[in-house]
Amino acid sequence: MSTALTLANALVAQQFGQQAGELHIGGVGVHALVAAHGSPLYVMDKYILQQRHAALRAALAGFAEVYYSIKANPQPAVARVFVEAGSGLEIASGGEFLLAKAAGCAPEHMLFAGPGKGEDELRLVMSEGIGDIHLECFEEVAVAGRLAAELGRVQPVALRINPSAAAQGGAMRMGGKPAAFGFDEEQMAQAVQAVLAWPGLRLDGIHLFAGTQVLQAEVLLQQWRLGLGLASQLAQLLGRPLQRIDLGGGLGIPYHPGQTTLDLDAVAQGVPALQQLQRDDPWLQGSGVLVEPGRWLSGPAGVYLMRVRAVKQSRGQRFVICDGGMHHHLAASGNLGQVIKLDYPLVAASRMDDTELAPAQVVGPLCTPLDTLGRQAQLPVATQAGDVLAVLQSGAYGLSASPVGFLSHAMPAEVMVADGQHQRVRAAGSFAEPLVNLM
Amino acid sequence: MSTALTLANALVAQQFGQQAGELHIGGVGVHALVAAHGSPLYVMDKYILQQRHAALRAALAGFAEVYYSIKANPQPAVARVFVEAGSGLEIASGGEFLLAKAAGCAPEHMLFAGPGKGEDELRLVMSEGIGDIHLECFEEVAVAGRLAAELGRVQPVALRINPSAAAQGGAMRMGGKPAAFGFDEEQMAQAVQAVLAWPGLRLDGIHLFAGTQVLQAEVLLQQWRLGLGLASQLAQLLGRPLQRIDLGGGLGIPYHPGQTTLDLDAVAQGVPALQQLQRDDPWLQGSGVLVEPGRWLSGPAGVYLMRVRAVKQSRGQRFVICDGGMHHHLAASGNLGQVIKLDYPLVAASRMDDTELAPAQVVGPLCTPLDTLGRQAQLPVATQAGDVLAVLQSGAYGLSASPVGFLSHAMPAEVMVADGQHQRVRAAGSFAEPLVNLM
Repeated sequence: MSTALTLANALVAQQFGQQAGELHIGGVGVHALVAAHGSPLYVMDKYILQQRHAALRAALAGFAEVYYSIKANPQPAVARVFVEAGSGLEIASGGEFLLAKAAGCAPEHMLFAGPGKGEDELRLVMSEGIGDIHLECFEEVAVAGRLAAELGRVQPVALRINPSAAAQGGAMRMGGKPAAFGFDEEQMAQAVQAVLAWPGLRLDGIHLFAGTQVLQAEVLLQQWRLGLGLASQLAQLLGRPLQRIDLGGGLGIPYHPGQTTLDLDAVAQGVPALQQLQRDDPWLQGSGVLVEPGRWLSGPAGVYLMRVRAVKQSRGQRFVICDGGMHHHLAASGNLGQVIKLDYPLVAASRMDDTELAPAQVVGPLCTPLDTLGRQAQLPVATQAGDVLAVLQSGAYGLSASPVGFLSHAMPAEVMVADGQHQRVRAAGSFAEPLVNLM
Repeated sequence: MSTALTLANALVAQQFGQQAGELHIGGVGVHALVAAHGSPLYVMDKYILQQRHAALRAALAGFAEVYYSIKANPQPAVARVFVEAGSGLEIASGGEFLLAKAAGCAPEHMLFAGPGKGEDELRLVMSEGIGDIHLECFEEVAVAGRLAAELGRVQPVALRINPSAAAQGGAMRMGGKPAAFGFDEEQMAQAVQAVLAWPGLRLDGIHLFAGTQVLQAEVLLQQWRLGLGLASQLAQLLGRPLQRIDLGGGLGIPYHPGQTTLDLDAVAQGVPALQQLQRDDPWLQGSGVLVEPGRWLSGPAGVYLMRVRAVKQSRGQRFVICDGGMHHHLAASGNLGQVIKLDYPLVAASRMDDTELAPAQVVGPLCTPLDTLGRQAQLPVATQAGDVLAVLQSGAYGLSASPVGFLSHAMPAEVMVADGQHQRVRAAGSFAEPLVNLM
């Protein structure tokens, strides 16, 4: 059995289930899901969302609050699960502000980060009373300061800081090098002065982000330790402790063979030392700490289902041609920033008991070789048209991060499952829609 | 001057123009375009579309018809330019069928290709009288045959053939190896028998596609020669010449330093030999030949305009932060299948006369390092907020091939310019739209 399949099978055993050879998600079989909502289809398991949120909150209890970064999956029904569990939301655009509101989040429980915020976006969120804006460059300080004066408002803001050193180990290390994000740590004093020049801006927070897709607890803890140190420095520059210390997201999930699951127990074991560090530093006392993962909270809860349309042999290779593809799931095709294209975990959702497997290329309906979701898949020899395949770990950076108009196919439905029930949270499109929506 | 800038400047000189330091597209300055239609903005130059179509038609006169493959840019206003010039359209989905109709193309002048056509898509195009369906696997033969019987129709079809040998030189060679596309050349006889078993299918065409982004005339001519050879073989299997020989697209355009412009004169010079080949082979006589480029026809006519929001220094590097980015132009960010991320040609559209240049990273507003449209850009030292930048060669695989919902920003407008006039062909969205359209 390939290692890729080992990861997929482990995820099925831990998170989902199977019955009579059929993958079940939240207690509902994939045949029932596809029959009710069509194929391809995005399915989110509400229980997994809730359980992960609760587990992270427990691991960080007494140290940090958990926010959800909705760019990972901005579907309001997904964000609402976290809002109902008491989370605030991190947003990165005016559009995400509206989605966060639609998810039931009060503006004061939102944070707005992003390297190039538009004046129209800042005006919207400030006029509606957003809780915090993370300022990332001098131009933005001036725009926010001017808008605060214009709106007659005192706006809480934080400085986003690009650290001069970063713990190693994430897939996309963002500290210690030049970046479009935030102020360089070396510019912190200058940035403080720039913000203090605007009476409508109340500087009382810091935001640090030094990596993404971190899978090792010690790397994450080390980043957080560096973050607390920077927060202390900023507090000293200000002459008072901060209200909020945003340690960023960065918690990763495994997609490929060799990637481990982040050890939440190890994270929890490192928390007392961070609490001690905060207690020992007068500049950190009374500050609220938060983390704002996106992928870690939503990724494992999502499954992308596709139906097989044809199976063909070409020069000794088997191609399994599906009705879903990169237009709905760019990341799974290896085209969302991946340097090396590795498969997402993929299972034959309607033939889970089949033991006779063979290699297959899993491709979508688009007329381009880029539309490949499985390069080294192992699928049942009996795979045929009508079968259902499932791409796991698809709850983050899925539909919203995909070129949905590419080749003008229909949008898929999105469904939330819970307790054996399934509820459509986005209706499927039809292929007549691109005319209206995308063109 | 960097070689990247040399390509950009050559394109400006050949295709566009500048006046008082401002880039003009179709006789309209970028400031006027952005003022009228907002930023970011996609601009298409109608004259360039017409001129390229006419040039290719002239080069292939007496040998092949020119179809437009609308997946490159399915905007109906773009496709309409080619339809009005007498072209048929190649489509790859039911959605593209509707877009092609919206562009004024009669179904009988459409060809439908694609590896995983849905039964609902086949039913739609067959019931509306599509001119040709390119069959790509045995399952599809059966579905089309059954639908033809059900609809009481005799459907002209072609076999798409994956050649056993392919001319070298394209960016994505598709012949000579296993593929999801078409029947392997070795299966041609078997595929013929499968089609002939269905009385409602009239097999009278062949479709070959052996590469994409071909920049050398001799490679293209060699592919076409191989294609005619395969068409002759298929005709012999059928016992009569074919009606249509579709030699595919594959004509490339330069994006990066070192990429040359396809020499259309050299293509034209190779045409008589192909005509002779066709005259000399009784199995090829009377067959209509066609090519169906997409990128070559539409790519050079399109420009993506962005406004600078901020310029920041981070650890010795200059970052130019714009309001446009990968959510509108995935290919220019290097994330649409590129193995090596090279910049698209990019110019400072509002400072064309500035001679003092310096390196810059050009990034978009998304909260991810993937959102980079210029890694080795050379931009004026004076670049500041409010300036307009232009990404050239953006008329193909632009908006429709991008993750437009990523981070929930607004959709840009699309504008067609001609004779100093500019006409909006798609209205800009607002960031309230993702709620309705994408979520």
